[in-house]
Amino acid sequence: MFSTMQDVPLTVTRILVHGALAHGKAQVVTWTGDGEPQRRTFHEVGLRSIQLANALHDELGVEEGQVVGSLMWNNCEHLEAYLAVPSMGAVLHTLNLRLPAAQLTWVVNHAADRVIIVNGSLLPLLAPLLPGLKSVEHVVVAGPGDRSVLDGCRATVHDYEELIEGRPVRYPWPVIDERRAAALCYTSGTTGDPKGVAYSHRSIYLHSMQINSVEGFGMSGKEMVLPVVPMFHANAWGTTHSAFMTGASILMPDRFLQPGPLADMIETVRPTVSAAVPTIWQGLLAELDARPRDVSSLREVYIGGAACPPSLMKAFEERHGIRVVHAWGMTELSPLGSVAHPPAGLTAEEEWRYRESQGLFPASVEYRLTSADGELVPLDGTSVGELEVRGPWIAGAYFGGAEGEPFRPEDKFTPDGWLKTGDVGAITEDGFLTLTDRAKDVIKSGGEWISSVELENHLMAHPDVAEAAVVAVPDEKWGERPLATVVLKDGSGIGYEALRAFLSERVAHWQLPERWALIEEVPKTSVGKFDKKVIRRRYADGELEVTQLA
Amino acid sequence: MFSTMQDVPLTVTRILVHGALAHGKAQVVTWTGDGEPQRRTFHEVGLRSIQLANALHDELGVEEGQVVGSLMWNNCEHLEAYLAVPSMGAVLHTLNLRLPAAQLTWVVNHAADRVIIVNGSLLPLLAPLLPGLKSVEHVVVAGPGDRSVLDGCRATVHDYEELIEGRPVRYPWPVIDERRAAALCYTSGTTGDPKGVAYSHRSIYLHSMQINSVEGFGMSGKEMVLPVVPMFHANAWGTTHSAFMTGASILMPDRFLQPGPLADMIETVRPTVSAAVPTIWQGLLAELDARPRDVSSLREVYIGGAACPPSLMKAFEERHGIRVVHAWGMTELSPLGSVAHPPAGLTAEEEWRYRESQGLFPASVEYRLTSADGELVPLDGTSVGELEVRGPWIAGAYFGGAEGEPFRPEDKFTPDGWLKTGDVGAITEDGFLTLTDRAKDVIKSGGEWISSVELENHLMAHPDVAEAAVVAVPDEKWGERPLATVVLKDGSGIGYEALRAFLSERVAHWQLPERWALIEEVPKTSVGKFDKKVIRRRYADGELEVTQLA
Repeated sequence: MFSTMQDVPLTVTRILVHGALAHGKAQVVTWTGDGEPQRRTFHEVGLRSIQLANALHDELGVEEGQVVGSLMWNNCEHLEAYLAVPSMGAVLHTLNLRLPAAQLTWVVNHAADRVIIVNGSLLPLLAPLLPGLKSVEHVVVAGPGDRSVLDGCRATVHDYEELIEGRPVRYPWPVIDERRAAALCYTSGTTGDPKGVAYSHRSIYLHSMQINSVEGFGMSGKEMVLPVVPMFHANAWGTTHSAFMTGASILMPDRFLQPGPLADMIETVRPTVSAAVPTIWQGLLAELDARPRDVSSLREVYIGGAACPPSLMKAFEERHGIRVVHAWGMTELSPLGSVAHPPAGLTAEEEWRYRESQGLFPASVEYRLTSADGELVPLDGTSVGELEVRGPWIAGAYFGGAEGEPFRPEDKFTPDGWLKTGDVGAITEDGFLTLTDRAKDVIKSGGEWISSVELENHLMAHPDVAEAAVVAVPDEKWGERPLATVVLKDGSGIGYEALRAFLSERVAHWQLPERWALIEEVPKTSVGKFDKKVIRRRYADGELEVTQLA
Repeated sequence: MFSTMQDVPLTVTRILVHGALAHGKAQVVTWTGDGEPQRRTFHEVGLRSIQLANALHDELGVEEGQVVGSLMWNNCEHLEAYLAVPSMGAVLHTLNLRLPAAQLTWVVNHAADRVIIVNGSLLPLLAPLLPGLKSVEHVVVAGPGDRSVLDGCRATVHDYEELIEGRPVRYPWPVIDERRAAALCYTSGTTGDPKGVAYSHRSIYLHSMQINSVEGFGMSGKEMVLPVVPMFHANAWGTTHSAFMTGASILMPDRFLQPGPLADMIETVRPTVSAAVPTIWQGLLAELDARPRDVSSLREVYIGGAACPPSLMKAFEERHGIRVVHAWGMTELSPLGSVAHPPAGLTAEEEWRYRESQGLFPASVEYRLTSADGELVPLDGTSVGELEVRGPWIAGAYFGGAEGEPFRPEDKFTPDGWLKTGDVGAITEDGFLTLTDRAKDVIKSGGEWISSVELENHLMAHPDVAEAAVVAVPDEKWGERPLATVVLKDGSGIGYEALRAFLSERVAHWQLPERWALIEEVPKTSVGKFDKKVIRRRYADGELEVTQLA
């Protein structure tokens, strides 16, 4: 029996129109460094988005299904592109400005971007690449920057404001199949070519609804969100779409992502909620210790993208009254997987145990754990396996294989269509996920798995340790053993024996690292994650000064 | 360009499996009057639902697409039917036990229910109808009640517990197109035959996600919800689906809907949130005044189904610290239309103005106002028109016309597929809806519209008035004029002149009723709404003692 409900598609167009109409007074505030922040209402942003759609269509000839790239910071114009490009039936390709030049060129060519909207401040990055960007016909420059670097380039150059000025504020929105692509985002994989995830209108809409839920980020018209996580990184975790959907105002940090300006803009503009990777919060915490600012407007900050040291969560809560909420996701999950809101009725201690986990999955993220040999692992809170997930905002393939078709690498997708996350952990009977490691970083020692992340977290809880990374290194007897690399705080002269004694009170004896090395800082990927591949290579190349304890 | 996201349907099956797995410890508590409430965990409810599906399939031969009726109060077994029947691909038809016998027979025959699951306490209602229920082959009785009334009936009678006992706790769930029907609910229209709305898996899932949002009812694992609104009335406003989705525990009132037992169960089981029509809250307020109970667990109550007197909202807030949130919906909207959560940054007085409105629409409910001649009315907060809506959980037709096809009566659906709500009101520039009347109840006086509801609300704010209903009556000079019918509080001897003087301070002079009548109580429909049709008929029949003021 078919239902009698209306067949209305879930589209980004609906987010654009609704936000502009029903939440017209909400604001997008973009930080400008010195001087006044730029302020626009959602109503103005909506009209400008429609003007942008008209400009792209009428002036640049952008048709449905074509790809428009954005090489931009988090700012109002980037949000306008977020809303306009998918609504007109085209696809927004957010370009990760931290990718190496060769990879940036590769992804633009792979996605066949016809237009690139670029911030003026990023022209020095784009200009040298342009000769190699074969499909790019138009460059639209938003915001200040030296445009002379584009002189002589093959593409037609436009000024963003001049392009949209005076355009109509209506657009004949196409009726869009909700399963069509709305946005493209390439994972910044550390091996092989980047892999494209083509989000659909449906996946963006459903994911935004989840972010709006209490079990998500709880967005509403009472909030102002500060997305520190870049808009080129999994849609800024959905924060800007969901803000526009519910009328939460948005504070855009633009290129001012250093701890000092972040503290300044929080004090001045007073956001209530924010989202970023742990390294950003670590930096902000140190900044606030050094130069206190009023950050009391912040109610909650969401932390994800890498495991968060519990010490950092507690520091924010105790020193600044800010609740740090742990979340887990991946580009392939739009990115929301799980959020660590604890259940009701717990003691403070129990609550912390839940909050330090990666959290609970929403109904739309189906989950299972599998062992190395592909068997299901019990969800009992202790058995460990690789996490596999399934759901309407989870990738089932990557964009553009050899023949332009979607492709499904075997190490990423199961034969029955689930995504293999590459994360290893346990799930409790009441559904809480604790990740212990990346599948590739886990240390396989004599048939047992040792979590590199668990060792790191314990080490980083030591008062003398600034950062620590633990990697697997080959061992004749055990197959692999952990190597602990440590960044000490300034002035500390603590020895390895003392650190190992500290660890020995917290983990089983057979997990204790024998090999130790001091490093100046932990190498990071373009999105701020520990880059353990680099440490393993340095070890292999003999670059580290390794001490072997008895 | 097609996206690379997984094509996973939004289904009730997902709600069932997720709730049972991830929120296994949450509870369904059913009130039993005296004695201990019945308590089951979501894990147990999930397993029992799967057993019910197996029993319906294996024992009763229920196939995909067939209809299973439920004639039940709000209790755990009803929730099990909610989860099991749609998940197996069948359709749950919730029967409104307050419908007149002839209509109840009509809807069962119209929907061709093969099975009816009925509470033992409702057998006296069902038994006399059974001979006329042509399609019903099986009756499944849940809970205590005299079953001898079924002796000799044509259908096979089963005991619910015996039927499900020992059945497998796995089921080969079919892959369901999310647009297929999951549940049937007939509107209790006061004119013509009842009209069936066939909710889809998709509409139930999306609507539940909206209920979970902060701009919805904010459901999460930290809450316990008390759905006083019946599960046969627009899925109890989505509360039980969304509770099972997020792990909010549920307090089921069963048949104990009188103010006394409601106050008792709130004090004993301590729910945090509830939902009901205004008359229920009015009764509870009087009960608490007469016999105080500890209702401090309640954080928020959602009120809808009829316009809520502001005096009632303020009384709950001031006397009991319970926030009353106004919401608007209809069976055809699953039922959520709008919720009156005010925006941030308002004075207390401004906030009340927003809270007394019907509220803000979510992105999934597109809205417009049209005049009597079909023109669009500006959304300026003052211009009044009929509300039309469009969206993925809104009916686009009714179930089963002459040839079994969906049908679209012209007075209910526009040619471009929007639902005509029959409600008249205004929408502000920032998206807040204020309904002033039903299109059929509005008083058309000399070319102006007078809101009957506004006059009623003012009258009911008078300390001597218990209830008041205002209806249009024919008038030679003005076409129509308001007739005020009033129920005075016990012992009051206030006169019509004094009431009119009270009104004259609150509405324009030309809106003041000339005709007044005392009544003993306002007649109500089966769902507790004022039944103005009855008052108009009594007036026309000369049954009311009408006083005409100068």
